[in-house]
Amino acid sequence: MRHFLDHAATSPMRQVAVDAWVEHAGMLNPGGQYGSGRAARRVLDDAREEIAALLGADPVEVIFTASGTEADNLAVTGLYRASPLGRVVSTPVEHPAVLEPVKALGRTGASVDLLPVGADGRVSDLSALDEPAAVACCMWANNETGALQPVDLVVTRAAAAGTPVHVDAVQVVGHRAVDFHALGATTLAASAHKFGGPRSGGLLLARRSPAPAPVLHGGGQERGIRPGTLDVATAAATAAALREAVAEMAAEEQRLAALRDRLRAGILDRVDDVVVHSPETDVLAGHLHVSFPGAEGDSLIMLLDAAGIEASTGSACASGVNRASHVLLAMGVDEATTRGAVRFTLGRTSTEDDVDAVLAVIGETVARARLAGMAG
Amino acid sequence: MRHFLDHAATSPMRQVAVDAWVEHAGMLNPGGQYGSGRAARRVLDDAREEIAALLGADPVEVIFTASGTEADNLAVTGLYRASPLGRVVSTPVEHPAVLEPVKALGRTGASVDLLPVGADGRVSDLSALDEPAAVACCMWANNETGALQPVDLVVTRAAAAGTPVHVDAVQVVGHRAVDFHALGATTLAASAHKFGGPRSGGLLLARRSPAPAPVLHGGGQERGIRPGTLDVATAAATAAALREAVAEMAAEEQRLAALRDRLRAGILDRVDDVVVHSPETDVLAGHLHVSFPGAEGDSLIMLLDAAGIEASTGSACASGVNRASHVLLAMGVDEATTRGAVRFTLGRTSTEDDVDAVLAVIGETVARARLAGMAG
Repeated sequence: MRHFLDHAATSPMRQVAVDAWVEHAGMLNPGGQYGSGRAARRVLDDAREEIAALLGADPVEVIFTASGTEADNLAVTGLYRASPLGRVVSTPVEHPAVLEPVKALGRTGASVDLLPVGADGRVSDLSALDEPAAVACCMWANNETGALQPVDLVVTRAAAAGTPVHVDAVQVVGHRAVDFHALGATTLAASAHKFGGPRSGGLLLARRSPAPAPVLHGGGQERGIRPGTLDVATAAATAAALREAVAEMAAEEQRLAALRDRLRAGILDRVDDVVVHSPETDVLAGHLHVSFPGAEGDSLIMLLDAAGIEASTGSACASGVNRASHVLLAMGVDEATTRGAVRFTLGRTSTEDDVDAVLAVIGETVARARLAGMAG
Repeated sequence: MRHFLDHAATSPMRQVAVDAWVEHAGMLNPGGQYGSGRAARRVLDDAREEIAALLGADPVEVIFTASGTEADNLAVTGLYRASPLGRVVSTPVEHPAVLEPVKALGRTGASVDLLPVGADGRVSDLSALDEPAAVACCMWANNETGALQPVDLVVTRAAAAGTPVHVDAVQVVGHRAVDFHALGATTLAASAHKFGGPRSGGLLLARRSPAPAPVLHGGGQERGIRPGTLDVATAAATAAALREAVAEMAAEEQRLAALRDRLRAGILDRVDDVVVHSPETDVLAGHLHVSFPGAEGDSLIMLLDAAGIEASTGSACASGVNRASHVLLAMGVDEATTRGAVRFTLGRTSTEDDVDAVLAVIGETVARARLAGMAG
């Protein structure tokens, strides 16, 4: 029996998404000026309309991309290129899909200002937003800790300076209510596989103006902002997953928060000297990011895996190289403590059993990892 | 009964690809350092190895992208950014996925030289390759006419000047033998949905050095060249489609060439004043690009559609706006003739019936479109 507690990395695909993909796998080119093209376009338009309605956007504001990473890059780099200004504002706790394009702009001459964050990982001083910038980026919820940012305050403050705002909502869409128009952001990124959709689906909500300049260039699809033959099956599967996610959202948040609370209390009961990085309020329900000082995150992940428990350090991403989390460092956590970080993230398939499984082994696991850490 | 003759735009997905996608839709994050991550990585590695073997590349040279457009952009822009040189060589008949990023580089300061092409659409003078450039781009086969380019000569000539070469092989992979190492190109782009794979799959073969700089920035996946959570189901479906396409390739080329020859001869029999743009030799087997001067391509497509026949002008791409084909203009075709262009492209599902259906209506269709053209 495996226990998957890494839903923030990717969440198992929903059956409705698999079914929608299979149903529409036979669709052809929605750009075709003929019967099968029109049929494909109808499915695409339906998906676009449904996604727009679920997220408080207009259909024309929905840009299909291939991933959350692509959506974030398009927003950050595209809004920068669409502006005459040479300044970017961001936060130091963004996901690499935002922080790396911001850094890339910095290397090519942009002036980059990072908003300071407090010990809870939330932006603590918005005054850098008072000077106009090409784009200001602020994630809605942190992928490591789950901490929600005051994105409404960021949007309001940036708007006063006429600065477009990009919100990375990859961890939020499908998990909490999102109303793009009410938020007032210029762009908002989402990733289908974070809410049980296909791994080929990304979304960028983009107001008509200012619109991001394209980052990829080609056939002029998606308002000229994002080229490539549109993938109708992925769009339909994304819409189906989002529909189900939004329908279950309220009940699921309560259920996950209860599981998460039991997990946190159980860990604190069983292990001494635990640092909890996830805040207790204004936080995603499924996230519990903790450090076990004296243990190495990699060892903990390996030992947990041997016990059938799948979790991550939260920061290793694809490389497999465990670096100190830039998020925890920005929160003022000392580097030794960051090295003992483990992120448990619960999701749709999570159960009491998964929590029990962690609690059954966490004491001994941390003890062994700490012994190995002392020896190392 | 519909007759689909637009395989060069997109080809119906193969059942093996649908099956492979469904089989692996449950795979989780191949970057995960735990059991389900390793299982996903094994499937991904298998797909990567199979694709590499089928295309004469090493597995490490296979970069998964989300589309041919993305692969082309990554190669063109990425090789340019990885070089200290400020010069790009291309051809005027490239697909927009290459030509548009080339133009974008030109707008930001690159010096762009386009190799001249002859009336057959093939590059006719390679001397611009003798001066070093950051990247030289030459498509293997033209998406409108099917004309094969002498890419081996381009690679050899560019290599003498130390210039990396990007080959857009989107129309070729899965249809003709490709040996990346034997060709000697630096990068080579493919699109899964052109050979019956999923629409979410693109491939960039990229030698270890010089490697393109990333265009999208994020989590460091794919040698740091292309970020984003890898889509294992798409990778497996792409490999499955390519395996089947390559196995059928030789027989399929013969079969399609015979159908194409009958289509061409039948059209020439039934319609006066036809201009055939596709060359008779060194051409993809499934392409037949023709003009009916005096008729508008859009009218022809609409009338053919009403008769159940799905074809395209070959150049409209997603926008639905029928502009004069840049390919035909570069070949020296006069603008009036380009406006009467229709591209028939045959593929895996094409039959004698499809050819018969075109031949049954083409005479009257062109006559009606020409009458409408005179009236207009």
